[in-house]
Amino acid sequence: MSSPSATGRVAGTRRSREISIADIARVAGVSHTTVSRALRDSPLISQETRKRIQQLALEMGYTPNAIAQSLQTRRTSTVGLAVTSIADPFLSEVVRGVEEVARSAGLSVFLSATHNDPEQEIAVIETFHRRRVDGILVASSRITGEYKQRLDQIRVPTVLINSQAESQYELLHWVAVDDLLGARLAVEHLLALGHRAIGYVGTSSRPRSCRQRLEGYQAALASAGLAPREEWVTIMAAEEASPQEDVLCGRRALLRQLDAGVTAIFCQNDMMAIGVLMACHRRGIAVPRELSVVGFDDIEMASCIIPPLTTVRQPRIELGRLAMQVLLDLLHEQEGRNHVLAPMLVVRESSAPPPAS
Amino acid sequence: MSSPSATGRVAGTRRSREISIADIARVAGVSHTTVSRALRDSPLISQETRKRIQQLALEMGYTPNAIAQSLQTRRTSTVGLAVTSIADPFLSEVVRGVEEVARSAGLSVFLSATHNDPEQEIAVIETFHRRRVDGILVASSRITGEYKQRLDQIRVPTVLINSQAESQYELLHWVAVDDLLGARLAVEHLLALGHRAIGYVGTSSRPRSCRQRLEGYQAALASAGLAPREEWVTIMAAEEASPQEDVLCGRRALLRQLDAGVTAIFCQNDMMAIGVLMACHRRGIAVPRELSVVGFDDIEMASCIIPPLTTVRQPRIELGRLAMQVLLDLLHEQEGRNHVLAPMLVVRESSAPPPAS
Repeated sequence: MSSPSATGRVAGTRRSREISIADIARVAGVSHTTVSRALRDSPLISQETRKRIQQLALEMGYTPNAIAQSLQTRRTSTVGLAVTSIADPFLSEVVRGVEEVARSAGLSVFLSATHNDPEQEIAVIETFHRRRVDGILVASSRITGEYKQRLDQIRVPTVLINSQAESQYELLHWVAVDDLLGARLAVEHLLALGHRAIGYVGTSSRPRSCRQRLEGYQAALASAGLAPREEWVTIMAAEEASPQEDVLCGRRALLRQLDAGVTAIFCQNDMMAIGVLMACHRRGIAVPRELSVVGFDDIEMASCIIPPLTTVRQPRIELGRLAMQVLLDLLHEQEGRNHVLAPMLVVRESSAPPPAS
Repeated sequence: MSSPSATGRVAGTRRSREISIADIARVAGVSHTTVSRALRDSPLISQETRKRIQQLALEMGYTPNAIAQSLQTRRTSTVGLAVTSIADPFLSEVVRGVEEVARSAGLSVFLSATHNDPEQEIAVIETFHRRRVDGILVASSRITGEYKQRLDQIRVPTVLINSQAESQYELLHWVAVDDLLGARLAVEHLLALGHRAIGYVGTSSRPRSCRQRLEGYQAALASAGLAPREEWVTIMAAEEASPQEDVLCGRRALLRQLDAGVTAIFCQNDMMAIGVLMACHRRGIAVPRELSVVGFDDIEMASCIIPPLTTVRQPRIELGRLAMQVLLDLLHEQEGRNHVLAPMLVVRESSAPPPAS
């Protein structure tokens, strides 16, 4: 404290103004230890002294230093949350759910974006570890088997959101929505309306959910005794997993779907469905009279678009809340459990029986 | 370390596995001090020893403890970001801009929601302070003059996003978009199209931007020699500042605007404009042929809605980036500056000349 600090003016000013235990001790005319005990509610000093010093600390504007406390307790009461994209409307609700539960448990959340890049995800997790977070949450993880060894080494309880880990690692758990079931619900709805030629539009940038929703689509058609034609399935090559790119994929996919002769399209997510709706609007195709369109996620926009979108609701806030709850269980020595949440079909106005041919 | 810890199994496991400087010293057969110097690249030990120990630390999976470091440096390399709502599509882009700049500067971001409640905002800021964040960012702050004294006391550099502080406090700065200019641009666009009866729809839940955008609306009309009639201005009473509530306000406001005889509506934000568009769709009113609708913000949804919305673009990512940059300047002893960003009119398909009467 005697030499000038390299961290500069602001830190210097702050240091000179911040109230320390020593300041309180000086004003109260007691020892450092007594103040420290009073602030910790220690029974080793009289109630009267305790009260007097606590009151004084309050008046002087003393704030306990969480950093110093965490070195003692070996807990930081922080968790790290890694998401592919902060501005993704699906993830922002998940983040909200995580933060709600974390805050009510007295934990603070570090938020960081991975941009869907495994290397950035690893860098983010290493940063969280250097900050000694008590736990880590990762949405739509891209980590590979190799990296799991590292997780095993750093021993930080981790919960994956919407990516399942086939791992023996005791501190790694996951919470996910049942994509296959969701896709089945969507396609069964279109089948029940009378559609037979049903298309699927997916994106290469979100391979896990694309694969699982495609499987659900195929399973539903198979249950109805239908074999999907190859040209009914359009997987768009996308540069990145972003909402903008998803809309663009949807817009571009429409022509190929129309050429394939489908009367209904099930899209991998709502942003892609919105892209399909926009392309329909441009081409003067009336939805749902001429073409039915169904999405997946039920982002906020889905109910605001015209026509309001029939889609599969992922319980997004619940997903975030549950993931954080599983992490809390792990932090409280309880057995961690993996969870599969059931999605729900939400029928709005973008789906109807096929046009009479 | 000798007594069993109250923090339980997980922390215990973690403690027993984590590689410490002492572990490295034991394996390398050197002193604790030598390892510590090697890891700090100290010139007090030979380059050879330094290299050998750094390599060993890497192999053993040693991660420096940021917590211990921050007690030495009095810096935590963390910032706190308080937002009214995490799932707000406007704010999620701002958060993204903040996080991008923070990460590239080696800082981690604590994210917390205030739910538009001054008391929660104060609680969040106190938590940030207890964590000894180096700086604080607050979006759409509700803090009052009284609380600024507290900010003055804790001496943490703070940047407000989209709320200006009339304060002498040297560490409090702000970055905001020029709401008044944005509203003028929107209304001047409608005037240029030939509209004379132009309505304004705002919400009581976002009083600052409502007032400023209303002023811009009034100024634009006045410049055109028009006095807005009282019934042209509809301020909806809203329970909370949420996207859902904004849509609802927009939906409910349409009838009052139609009764007032307007041919165009300027809405306080895009979600309200989307609510107006939805209500028009329900009532069979063709936008823009029968009624023009203009929003404010240019959230992602604005370009995806049908018809694509004419609106005023707030540079959202830039707002977040710039706020974080101002905070970095403050942290690096540079003079902090307040910034006003200019918004931009984006003409899409929801505005057209008024119907011939």
